[in-house]
Amino acid sequence: MTHEDYMAIAVREGVEGMRSGKGGPFGAVIVASGEIIGKGCNMVTSLNDPTAHAEMVAIRNACQAVKSFHLTDAVLYTSCEPCPMCLSAMYWAKIKEFFYCTDRFDAARIDFADQFIYDEIVLPLNDRTSKARQIHLPAAMALFEEWAASQTKISY
Amino acid sequence: MTHEDYMAIAVREGVEGMRSGKGGPFGAVIVASGEIIGKGCNMVTSLNDPTAHAEMVAIRNACQAVKSFHLTDAVLYTSCEPCPMCLSAMYWAKIKEFFYCTDRFDAARIDFADQFIYDEIVLPLNDRTSKARQIHLPAAMALFEEWAASQTKISY
Repeated sequence: MTHEDYMAIAVREGVEGMRSGKGGPFGAVIVASGEIIGKGCNMVTSLNDPTAHAEMVAIRNACQAVKSFHLTDAVLYTSCEPCPMCLSAMYWAKIKEFFYCTDRFDAARIDFADQFIYDEIVLPLNDRTSKARQIHLPAAMALFEEWAASQTKISY
Repeated sequence: MTHEDYMAIAVREGVEGMRSGKGGPFGAVIVASGEIIGKGCNMVTSLNDPTAHAEMVAIRNACQAVKSFHLTDAVLYTSCEPCPMCLSAMYWAKIKEFFYCTDRFDAARIDFADQFIYDEIVLPLNDRTSKARQIHLPAAMALFEEWAASQTKISY
């Protein structure tokens, strides 16, 4: 199987998901040691889940398959360049390599917000279109201190 | 209920989640029209789901509660500044306002990668620690064109 072969499967996931009304035109597969360990298509509108992007679904499925919250040696194939949510999820999952076909600019041309979100999240909190305010509750810092001091925690 | 009251509930979610071994020290609540419509704590390690951050869990729960993939008039309270995955998910969910206590720098001090990921995702694809490569498959662009031409699609 070549990179193109895996990518063709990712695109096919997107085609089938879109045509069956699951969500937007996006598909992804995750491969480790030559095996597909997770697949996904966009399911935002059918599941009422704005986090159900193809890559997120594939990551969650792969993690269930390997019973781990890390996919350290896995490669992700996604029909379109990941949005910042999915890209960040890849970092959390320790996926260090991915392939994509269309990109954020192609996605913008069919009215998806990927590029807008990339532009927004790098801005200082007060310069974004969304509002963010900090509240100082001592309990929040105490929560971090309790975590730092814990001898039994599972780090990730 | 004040912003501090809702935040105290978010922090409490994080405390209870951490102490019961669900995951890291993070909690979140989502409020619309004065009602809590979703809550969540970090469940990454207990669910083997790297996407199960407190804000993501709260967003998914709130969306199920209101049966929508958008939370247009909702406000999110999170015990710690959202990582870029969760911040992007808020944009996808159309949450336009959030409150937080601790921030990405506090999180870095207890060894969470939020700041690292913020730094990485703004880099050009070839300058990141992770590798990304574009593959040109005509089927991927055709998928976008089919979506654009669809008369029955549900946009988001």
